[in-house]
Amino acid sequence: MTLAKLNQQDLKGMDQRGRVKLINSVVGYKSANLIGTVDSKGQENLSIVSSVIHLGSSPALIGFISRPHSVERHTLENIITGGYYTINAVSADIAQQAHQTSARYDKRQSEFDMVGLTAEYDDDFPAPFVLQSPLKMGMKLVERITIATNQTELVIGEIDRIWLAKKAVMPDGYVDVESLQLVTISGLDSYHTTERLHRLSYAKPDTLVYPLTLEGDPSSWLAFEKQK
Amino acid sequence: MTLAKLNQQDLKGMDQRGRVKLINSVVGYKSANLIGTVDSKGQENLSIVSSVIHLGSSPALIGFISRPHSVERHTLENIITGGYYTINAVSADIAQQAHQTSARYDKRQSEFDMVGLTAEYDDDFPAPFVLQSPLKMGMKLVERITIATNQTELVIGEIDRIWLAKKAVMPDGYVDVESLQLVTISGLDSYHTTERLHRLSYAKPDTLVYPLTLEGDPSSWLAFEKQK
Repeated sequence: MTLAKLNQQDLKGMDQRGRVKLINSVVGYKSANLIGTVDSKGQENLSIVSSVIHLGSSPALIGFISRPHSVERHTLENIITGGYYTINAVSADIAQQAHQTSARYDKRQSEFDMVGLTAEYDDDFPAPFVLQSPLKMGMKLVERITIATNQTELVIGEIDRIWLAKKAVMPDGYVDVESLQLVTISGLDSYHTTERLHRLSYAKPDTLVYPLTLEGDPSSWLAFEKQK
Repeated sequence: MTLAKLNQQDLKGMDQRGRVKLINSVVGYKSANLIGTVDSKGQENLSIVSSVIHLGSSPALIGFISRPHSVERHTLENIITGGYYTINAVSADIAQQAHQTSARYDKRQSEFDMVGLTAEYDDDFPAPFVLQSPLKMGMKLVERITIATNQTELVIGEIDRIWLAKKAVMPDGYVDVESLQLVTISGLDSYHTTERLHRLSYAKPDTLVYPLTLEGDPSSWLAFEKQK
């Protein structure tokens, strides 16, 4: 395969919208999640983000990126004020509605209503979940970090609770997100379903990794059923 | 679909390895990239990461997460010392070799050699690229941030150059990463190829988003060919 090189001059010389699409593409596939929040007056907000990342398992920390002046700004304001939010995975059947939340709606308009998704509350948890999402988490804000280079903000939360289909949890703890039809995003606007190549064994220096079944490595099964 | 709730007690009560797999799964799909570095003695290092994220397009900033005491530590040391590194996308044909780089090799062993990938240099750029990768970037370190809550580090670099197949760049700047057979990761060890559902139009409050062709929205084409 013949590859072409783009240097900094090439990138700077590009049309701005084109560069944004290219730079957003070259990082590869991203997760697709909806952030649910509510303000002190009960006004709900829902925003798609493609920057959710795992930051640690103990405590269970998840981060996402909020850009300055972006449509996620209402979301960020609500998180800062209220301290709680939800992360709701986007499955194929709600991908179009999820993408529609990126429109610049007025703060008084709830994206839940505008795109046709349903806000759902759990017990005393203060932020709204997306009823239609097959995998969702209640999050508590724990840290905010501003990236000096471009004033972008990393918002970090700890998982308070997880809602998921038990049948998607494999014996070793892996969640078969493919069975939930979760989508992945490339660039700014391309949505994809997936097909599993394989799970691979834990890598060790003296042996080569080998494919596992979907159920994983029996030596690391955690007996999820017994825990509940 | 009936969902089960896991609260903080449930998560804390889980077997540690199982919790790690579960928490790594619930964020959804992640990008698959290999970070290439070299130390001052010429010792090369290669490490798979699933935490590469887009942080901004102007300047073109990309971040990834380095955990304390993880196998990426040699990688991080080299980046701090040398200031440069590469990000190389993982395609389906090198996924197994890429996963193998996560084994705890001795610092004197090059993962390139151990897993059978080829180091490739470009002009004066000081870090090694992966010859077999179809999409790769030369990066310059610009910022490091330590997350107070768990001492994990966000490493931020600016794109210095990009190597990619020109035919994968659509007229509007979107890169068709699916045509490059890039894989996406779920959990710690599951590798997936993708199938495009659709690209979607830029979302506006007064109209509903609609599917685009792979070539995107002609109104935002950048005439990539003219730029080169």
